[in-house]
Amino acid sequence: MSIKPWKIIQSKYLLQDQWLTLRADTCLTAEGIELDPFYIFEKRDWAHVMVFDTEGRVLIVRQYRHGSKTICAELPCGVIDDSDTSPLDAAKRELLEETGCMAEDYVPVKPVYTNPARQTNWVHCFVAYNARKVAEPNLDVSENIESEFVSLEALFGLIDDGEFSQSLHISSVYQVLRKIGKLNLEEITRF
Amino acid sequence: MSIKPWKIIQSKYLLQDQWLTLRADTCLTAEGIELDPFYIFEKRDWAHVMVFDTEGRVLIVRQYRHGSKTICAELPCGVIDDSDTSPLDAAKRELLEETGCMAEDYVPVKPVYTNPARQTNWVHCFVAYNARKVAEPNLDVSENIESEFVSLEALFGLIDDGEFSQSLHISSVYQVLRKIGKLNLEEITRF
Repeated sequence: MSIKPWKIIQSKYLLQDQWLTLRADTCLTAEGIELDPFYIFEKRDWAHVMVFDTEGRVLIVRQYRHGSKTICAELPCGVIDDSDTSPLDAAKRELLEETGCMAEDYVPVKPVYTNPARQTNWVHCFVAYNARKVAEPNLDVSENIESEFVSLEALFGLIDDGEFSQSLHISSVYQVLRKIGKLNLEEITRF
Repeated sequence: MSIKPWKIIQSKYLLQDQWLTLRADTCLTAEGIELDPFYIFEKRDWAHVMVFDTEGRVLIVRQYRHGSKTICAELPCGVIDDSDTSPLDAAKRELLEETGCMAEDYVPVKPVYTNPARQTNWVHCFVAYNARKVAEPNLDVSENIESEFVSLEALFGLIDDGEFSQSLHISSVYQVLRKIGKLNLEEITRF
């Protein structure tokens, strides 16, 4: 393969606060082309969690998202922060905080990039079972999150009607379904 | 549902050039909490395209991605720009520019958000058939892109080994496979 990484000639931070770290790199491609500025967002990794209850229903959350200015249905998720000892720890914490639920038998799905062109971070997704409510949600003052258990059929209905419409979460749903053997790869890949 | 959109009290642009539009909003939640700043990235929509050749193989591209600092395998994709009359037009243009290929019988998949929490844009994905090389790629000076037709089995191998690891593209692959009837939803949703 003739594709080579770029070299960073210079790098500076344009904005760095608790919400955003924006870096402007001056890059040199292997072909000798200078790119200036090339913006990169240094971000903490995110955790997604897809939990099933004993009836095979999936726990989803709904909240206002200000980029789209819509109410979005998603998997429980959040930023992996300094207090988390691992991505799994973050997934369990976000699940409990956002929904008041706990689950069992966590299995990790392979991490994926959020957007490797401009962002540095990964999504760590987990699947778990026997989800049940054990407490009231413990939300940040800025959060208003409602949760609901829905059947897989209903979840695909939400994807199809655009209510569950964030591609990162759609990716996680399918990757989990494949991980737990719900997608027949042999059938899929037959031509 | 008791979830209400936020009000924008004030809005200013911190950075606005050909690569990035960064807005800082002062928001008021329905519960009366002020969020300042809440950063939003105003972005143009993106187009993805999953094309099959006559042997059922999928066309993928590989390029260096500076956020992850790795060579990533992806679907052909790009920004929908002012010269494009439609998302489909952009998908065809990017396919031709990046790979030198054309295809037929384009079918759209439902658009999804890239990241509705912080970004304003959508991914418009298309599936098409009878892909064939008609020209040499026509790349920007900063681009070095290699393309290859791979079987669906090989594509899932690339997803599993982390080479095809961008969640937005993984979402598009599965959504296309569902659109064209390769995923048996009845089987998936059976509990």
